[in-house]
Amino acid sequence: MTTTVLLTGFEPFNQQPINPAWEAVRALEGWAEQGIVLHVRQLPCVFGQAADVLREALDVIRPDVVIAVGQAGGRADITVERIAINIDDAPIADNRAVQLVDEPIVPGGPAAYFATLPIKAIVHALRAAGLPASVSQTAGTFVCNHVFYQLMHMLREQPAVRAGFIHIPFLPQQAARQPVPTASMALVDMVEALKIAVRTACAVAGDLREAGGGTH
Amino acid sequence: MTTTVLLTGFEPFNQQPINPAWEAVRALEGWAEQGIVLHVRQLPCVFGQAADVLREALDVIRPDVVIAVGQAGGRADITVERIAINIDDAPIADNRAVQLVDEPIVPGGPAAYFATLPIKAIVHALRAAGLPASVSQTAGTFVCNHVFYQLMHMLREQPAVRAGFIHIPFLPQQAARQPVPTASMALVDMVEALKIAVRTACAVAGDLREAGGGTH
Amino acid sequence: MTTTVLLTGFEPFNQQPINPAWEAVRALEGWAEQGIVLHVRQLPCVFGQAADVLREALDVIRPDVVIAVGQAGGRADITVERIAINIDDAPIADNRAVQLVDEPIVPGGPAAYFATLPIKAIVHALRAAGLPASVSQTAGTFVCNHVFYQLMHMLREQPAVRAGFIHIPFLPQQAARQPVPTASMALVDMVEALKIAVRTACAVAGDLREAGGGTH
Amino acid sequence: MTTTVLLTGFEPFNQQPINPAWEAVRALEGWAEQGIVLHVRQLPCVFGQAADVLREALDVIRPDVVIAVGQAGGRADITVERIAINIDDAPIADNRAVQLVDEPIVPGGPAAYFATLPIKAIVHALRAAGLPASVSQTAGTFVCNHVFYQLMHMLREQPAVRAGFIHIPFLPQQAARQPVPTASMALVDMVEALKIAVRTACAVAGDLREAGGGTH
Repeated sequence: MTTTVLLTGFEPFNQQPINPAWEAVRALEGWAEQGIVLHVRQLPCVFGQAADVLREALDVIRPDVVIAVGQAGGRADITVERIAINIDDAPIADNRAVQLVDEPIVPGGPAAYFATLPIKAIVHALRAAGLPASVSQTAGTFVCNHVFYQLMHMLREQPAVRAGFIHIPFLPQQAARQPVPTASMALVDMVEALKIAVRTACAVAGDLREAGGGTH
Repeated sequence: MTTTVLLTGFEPFNQQPINPAWEAVRALEGWAEQGIVLHVRQLPCVFGQAADVLREALDVIRPDVVIAVGQAGGRADITVERIAINIDDAPIADNRAVQLVDEPIVPGGPAAYFATLPIKAIVHALRAAGLPASVSQTAGTFVCNHVFYQLMHMLREQPAVRAGFIHIPFLPQQAARQPVPTASMALVDMVEALKIAVRTACAVAGDLREAGGGTH
Repeated sequence: MTTTVLLTGFEPFNQQPINPAWEAVRALEGWAEQGIVLHVRQLPCVFGQAADVLREALDVIRPDVVIAVGQAGGRADITVERIAINIDDAPIADNRAVQLVDEPIVPGGPAAYFATLPIKAIVHALRAAGLPASVSQTAGTFVCNHVFYQLMHMLREQPAVRAGFIHIPFLPQQAARQPVPTASMALVDMVEALKIAVRTACAVAGDLREAGGGTH
Repeated sequence: MTTTVLLTGFEPFNQQPINPAWEAVRALEGWAEQGIVLHVRQLPCVFGQAADVLREALDVIRPDVVIAVGQAGGRADITVERIAINIDDAPIADNRAVQLVDEPIVPGGPAAYFATLPIKAIVHALRAAGLPASVSQTAGTFVCNHVFYQLMHMLREQPAVRAGFIHIPFLPQQAARQPVPTASMALVDMVEALKIAVRTACAVAGDLREAGGGTH
C-alpha cells in the first residue's frame, strides 16, 4: 500500500533571496522510499493566491499526508505547529504588497484548526535523530498561518488525511547577513528533518502522549 | 451607566512565593472610577478547579467585562492574548500535582476562541502611556490558557460581554532570584497597565485596526 | 568620616529622547545619607569629550568612590561591569557623528582595567533587595566602555579610590517604543539600585567571593 | 614558505558527551593545503592542566598561528574572541571538580590580552562564505578564557605569532537534548569555518577596519 504525500514550500519573501522551506522541499523532489510517493509544490507568498495553488495541488494529487513548510527566521529549531488560527494580521507586506490586518481567513470559519499530523511523534523522532525540534503553539498570523488554516479548512471533511505545518530556521547563509547573531540550520539537516517528518506521519496511527506545551 | 468588571489573578505556582498577577489584581480591589465597578477574584492554579471558581464568580457578579491575568515569567512586556485553544498540555504540574498532556479542555468544544476584548486598542493605550505591551498569539497550554478558554466558552452565548486574558512579566524580586538575567516589571506599572486595560475595555465600541501579528 | 561619591550619567544617544542613566543619576542629586556626600555629573555621549568632562569632575570633586552609569538597551537587569578594555569600536556614531573603529582609547595603555568597585558585593546587595542584577564581563566598545576605561586609567595611581561602571536597562517608556518586546526597569528601581550600589561601595572593605562569571 | 598552525579543542565538559570544538578540530587532523602545516591537540577542560598541555604543544610545534577553539553552548554563530581577561570565575566546576572564583590566572599579569589574530578579517571571510559569524567582546571567565589568556601570555614575547580563540555553537545533536529551543550549527559548517579562519590568519598581514563592536 502506498501513501501519497504532498510537501509544499514557499517562495522567498521579506527581501530574502531564498526561502529555506522551498530549498528543503525541492531537494526532496523525486525522493523515493518504500510505500511513499512524494509530490512537491512551491507556493507564492501571497495571501489568497497561496491557498489557490494549494487547493489545486490537493485536487490533483489527492494526498494522504500534507506537510506545508515555511521559514521562521530567528527560531533555533524545527518547529512542528500545533494549531492554525482564522486571522490574517500581517506585520509585513506579502509578495503582492498586500498587508492584511485582522481579516478572517475564512469568514464564518472556526476560530482555529488543530494539525492532524502526529506532532509529538514527529518531534520525538527528530530529537531521537539528533535534530533539534519542538512543538510550536503559534504559526504566526502571516501567510504561513494563512496556508496552514486554509489547508486544514479544505480537508475538514477528510479526517483520514493527516495534515499540518512545519517551520524551519534560516539557512546559515541567511543568518550570515543578519545584523545580529541569528540561529540557523544546515540545509542537509532540514532535508533530513522533512524525511523523518514524512516517514513518521506515514507510519504512526495515533500520536504520542508526551508533554510539548508551554506555561505561556 | 455602570460597567461591571471582573479581574482575576492566579495564586503562586511553580515554586514562586508570589504571583504578580494576583499582586496586581488585588491592588485594584476597591478601585473606584466613574462608571466602573470592579470585582477581583483569586483563582487556584489547578486545572478544572480554576474554572469552577471563575464560573461561580461570573454567576454572582454578572460582569460586562472580564480580564483574567496571569504570570508569564520571562516575557518582557504586558501581553494581551489574542486566542485561547482547546488543549491542556502542561510542561509542569499544577498546584494539585496534576500534569495533563494533550487533553481537550472542553471535549467537543471548538478548537479555539478569540478574545472579545479590544486587544489592539489596549496595546495601543498601554504604549501611549509609556508601558511596553504587545499582542500575543499564544497563551500557552497550561492553566492560564485553560482559564482563558473556559472563560470564553462560558461566555459563548453572551457576545456583549468583553472578555480576554493578559499576561504580565515577573516582578523584579522574582527576576532577582533567577539563575540568568530575566526581564521584569514594577508592580506599580502592572497595576497602572491593568487600569488602562479596564478603562479601554469599558470605553471602546470596536477594536482598532493596527498590525499586531507575527510572521511566525 | 565622610565618603565623597561621584555618579555620572550620559546624555541621550542613538535617537533616544532620554537616557535612563542620566534620569537615575540626576534623581540622586542632593541625596544625603550619613557619611556620604554625593556629586552628580552628566557626560556627553562623545568619544574624548566625555573623558574630558569626567577628568574635570575628578579634579574638582576628588571623590573616594566613582560610579559611571550608562544605558544598556535590551539588557534585562542591572549589570555591574567587571572590566574596561582599551579599544573604541563603535557600532553606531556618537553624538558628534564620529564612529571610531578599532582605535585604542589610550595608545600604549594597558589592554584593560578591572573595576575597583566591590562588584560581587554590589550584585549581592541588589539581589537581596529584590532588584535583578548580575556581573557583566563586557561593557561593549562604545562610549560607555570608553569612559569606563578612561576613568580607571585616570585613577591608576590612586588605588584607594573605588571606581567602576554600571549598566542599566531601558526605561518602560523607551521599551514601549521598540519594535519588538524589550526588557525595561522602572526609574524608581534604578534609583534605588544606584543608592544600594553607592552604599555598598562606601561600606565594604573587600569584595565578596561569589561566582559571577560565565562559561563564555 | 610554510605556515605552521596549531588548532586546539577541548574535551567534553558540563555533562555533555561530546565537545563540538574537539569534533571540529580533530576533523582537520591531516588536512593539507599549500603552504599550511596543521597540528591539532585536545585540551583537558581543567584549570591549569589545560594550559600545561598547551604550553607543551607550543614548545614542540613552534607554530606561527594558534587558534584555540571552544564550545559556547547557546550562541548562534561562530564568535571570534577579541580579548582574554586575567580572571578565573567559574559558574560551574571544571572536569577535576574545581570551581575557581575570582582568582587571577597569572598573578601579577596584565588585566587582559587582545587576540593577535586578524579577527575582523576572519569574521568577514566567514560571512562572505555564508557562515554566520561575529566578533565577541568576552570569552567568559571559565576554562576557555583561561586557555586564551594563558596562550596570549605564553606568546607575549613573540609578537609575530598570531593567536586567538574562536567559540562555536552546540552541534544539532546537543541542541536536540536541551530543554528549550537552542541554536546549533552543523559539524561540516564548523569545520569549514575553521579552515577559513586558518587560511585567513595565514594570509592577511594586518586586520580589516570594519565595525565589530557593541554599544554594551
